[in-house]
Amino acid sequence: MLRANDPNLHSWIQISATSEFPIQNLPFGIFSVGDQDARVGVAIGDYILDLCVLGQEGLFELLDIDPTVFNRSFLNDFIALGQPIWRAVRERISVLLRNDNSEIRDNDALMHRCLVKQVDAHMHLPVKISNYTDFHTSLESATNVGLLFRDPENGLTPNWKHLPVGYHGRASSIVVSGTPIHRPKGQIKFKNSPLPTFMPTQQLDFELEIGFITGTNTALGTSISTAEAEEHIFGLVLFNDWSARDIQRWEQLPLGPFLGKSFASSISPWVVTLDALDSFRVAGSLQTPAVLPYLEYTGNKHLDINLKVYLQTSPEPSALISQTNTQYLYWTMNQLLAHQTSNGCNIEVGDLYASGTISGSEPDSYGSLLELTWNGSKPILLPNGTIRTYLEDGDTLIFKGYAEHNSVRVGFGELRTKILPAI
Amino acid sequence: MLRANDPNLHSWIQISATSEFPIQNLPFGIFSVGDQDARVGVAIGDYILDLCVLGQEGLFELLDIDPTVFNRSFLNDFIALGQPIWRAVRERISVLLRNDNSEIRDNDALMHRCLVKQVDAHMHLPVKISNYTDFHTSLESATNVGLLFRDPENGLTPNWKHLPVGYHGRASSIVVSGTPIHRPKGQIKFKNSPLPTFMPTQQLDFELEIGFITGTNTALGTSISTAEAEEHIFGLVLFNDWSARDIQRWEQLPLGPFLGKSFASSISPWVVTLDALDSFRVAGSLQTPAVLPYLEYTGNKHLDINLKVYLQTSPEPSALISQTNTQYLYWTMNQLLAHQTSNGCNIEVGDLYASGTISGSEPDSYGSLLELTWNGSKPILLPNGTIRTYLEDGDTLIFKGYAEHNSVRVGFGELRTKILPAI
Repeated sequence: MLRANDPNLHSWIQISATSEFPIQNLPFGIFSVGDQDARVGVAIGDYILDLCVLGQEGLFELLDIDPTVFNRSFLNDFIALGQPIWRAVRERISVLLRNDNSEIRDNDALMHRCLVKQVDAHMHLPVKISNYTDFHTSLESATNVGLLFRDPENGLTPNWKHLPVGYHGRASSIVVSGTPIHRPKGQIKFKNSPLPTFMPTQQLDFELEIGFITGTNTALGTSISTAEAEEHIFGLVLFNDWSARDIQRWEQLPLGPFLGKSFASSISPWVVTLDALDSFRVAGSLQTPAVLPYLEYTGNKHLDINLKVYLQTSPEPSALISQTNTQYLYWTMNQLLAHQTSNGCNIEVGDLYASGTISGSEPDSYGSLLELTWNGSKPILLPNGTIRTYLEDGDTLIFKGYAEHNSVRVGFGELRTKILPAI
Repeated sequence: MLRANDPNLHSWIQISATSEFPIQNLPFGIFSVGDQDARVGVAIGDYILDLCVLGQEGLFELLDIDPTVFNRSFLNDFIALGQPIWRAVRERISVLLRNDNSEIRDNDALMHRCLVKQVDAHMHLPVKISNYTDFHTSLESATNVGLLFRDPENGLTPNWKHLPVGYHGRASSIVVSGTPIHRPKGQIKFKNSPLPTFMPTQQLDFELEIGFITGTNTALGTSISTAEAEEHIFGLVLFNDWSARDIQRWEQLPLGPFLGKSFASSISPWVVTLDALDSFRVAGSLQTPAVLPYLEYTGNKHLDINLKVYLQTSPEPSALISQTNTQYLYWTMNQLLAHQTSNGCNIEVGDLYASGTISGSEPDSYGSLLELTWNGSKPILLPNGTIRTYLEDGDTLIFKGYAEHNSVRVGFGELRTKILPAI
């Protein structure tokens, strides 16, 4: 076990037992306060630790890194330093925050400069996304969507259990939690009309996903094995692959999703390192039929992360509309990276690889409204009496995700997005 | 007409009448000589004009730009300066190279420093590609591929004439002409086997395409009209969307092309500005049925660019295997950009938007081996007696493209790629 993950560690900062940001987490993000430049920070309890200040004060001096790497508006330059540095920095931060360490604790001026309350900070997109692939790794969701979208008799395509099905997504339109989304317009083809209409989507949906960020540049022509994959994975984010189902349905044949998805995707501000999630590994179910050798792996590569979706129909309180867990995904992160690079495709620092919609086997565990409402045929009744099939203007959608074990909760915070009317 | 396009202009540099780089072209690229840093250059006849040197010598002083923008390993920072600067720089270069201008012509030392023979230079990827979309805008190719890949009865999907069908491609694996490509491996499903096999592709194909590079960052939620589109387009490149047809066929359902394409794509080293192609505009055929209002446009938006594909089966001379023209494309560049952004998707400096395979109506004008050999059923017989269905290791494929009018030929040079064995 990594020392920084020890459940017995405690910080000199007061942290609630239900906080998603205990000393065992230490997720990285980009924040600013007021007019100050955006910079790298680490979440700890209700605070953000300002790594830019720590760098200026020489607190990373023994690590042999350029401390100005924390004075950037994206994590990419830090991530590019590689796994040994990610680990050394996280371990150093863990040491600085432990209740037996006095370097910050007993230096009032420094403490004042390097700790910012999260409520006072503005969070930015943590990573400049270089390339973005969206997979569809949940057997339950792939079956549901196949039944609803493609073939009412047979949800899964013949290839689905042999390879992680995926497609290239649009990187430019990925935004951080808190960024409102305008309802997109697009071509919609109604069954009773011979021609398509250009109008705001009437089927605005979310997709509950988790994504991972890579931290290396590999050479074109080379592949990453399942055994090597984790050296390339910096951390994970909550991810919402917004979807306009009516636009998607009309455009999708023959080349796949395009404008029905590219209007926006949202990620959580905090990137939880794969190291911090190490304590929450579990075994997955046996993959049957057996996968090809390049997709075989050993060890516990699934993660036990609880995911919840809340819908707030302004100005009402939010209602839980789905809950599921990443451990039920069919394909693992290391299989995704091995498959992505099996043809020699290179990866880059800041790539995002997302899981696709995560659905469990029960209807209240489905990760999209398409599935939850069975394409609108079973509307959701919220506790306040409101009915929803798809999202309406003014709605706010909130994803939460955390792992918990030995009374330690490691989470992502919120991914929160408000829907605005079409422009 | 832009002054720099005047067919009566002549340079003090001797340029062959059949050169694709007369003073009316002035395409931009990134080059280096020996150990020198990569920098921005412009092709003129058999030479490259070193803009980095011209900047150092103050020859762009009146343009109010930072001349170090030419001392970069990608064109992106220059492109980001916007259309008025692209035009001013091209006009300034045109003036400097005209036979009546003495600033370089009569300065032997400067001429020596700023002119490099193309044969002595190494060309680099001209643009750091931010996002890449591949459309499929040729009616003939879409019909052919649909018949071969999807439905032997009906090539076109119902949406095809209503919107430019496209998908997001992989940006990281786009390389410049001269970069050899290793035959990719992947999952292939043979008809006589119940399970897929992981092996080198047996159906390695090219796709003859043209692409355009955008030069602006737009805001998420905004759209670009067909009338505004050209302000955002810096220039065009030859583009080869390498495809492994057997890998593509097995993986493509339900989310579209993925690893069958992402192992590599190739672009020409020279970006020919949209301004330089202004003299070669032609009207397209009427689009029937009429397009939706957001896709309507006025003016001549098609380009008359001759395209040729040569195959060299080492060490034989190359043979012409296809020739076609961009003017037959169904959808125009301004329609592609209007469609891409119609849902509010933002564009970025350095985005690449490609045409998809360009095929004419005759079998010798098809832009891929899939079509030329009708999926291998009609092998090509080369003049040297060699037979090809798909590409073999050691083959070299060459795209050429140029427009010609009033004895002025404006071209892209070569896009040349050699196929190496699988690793």
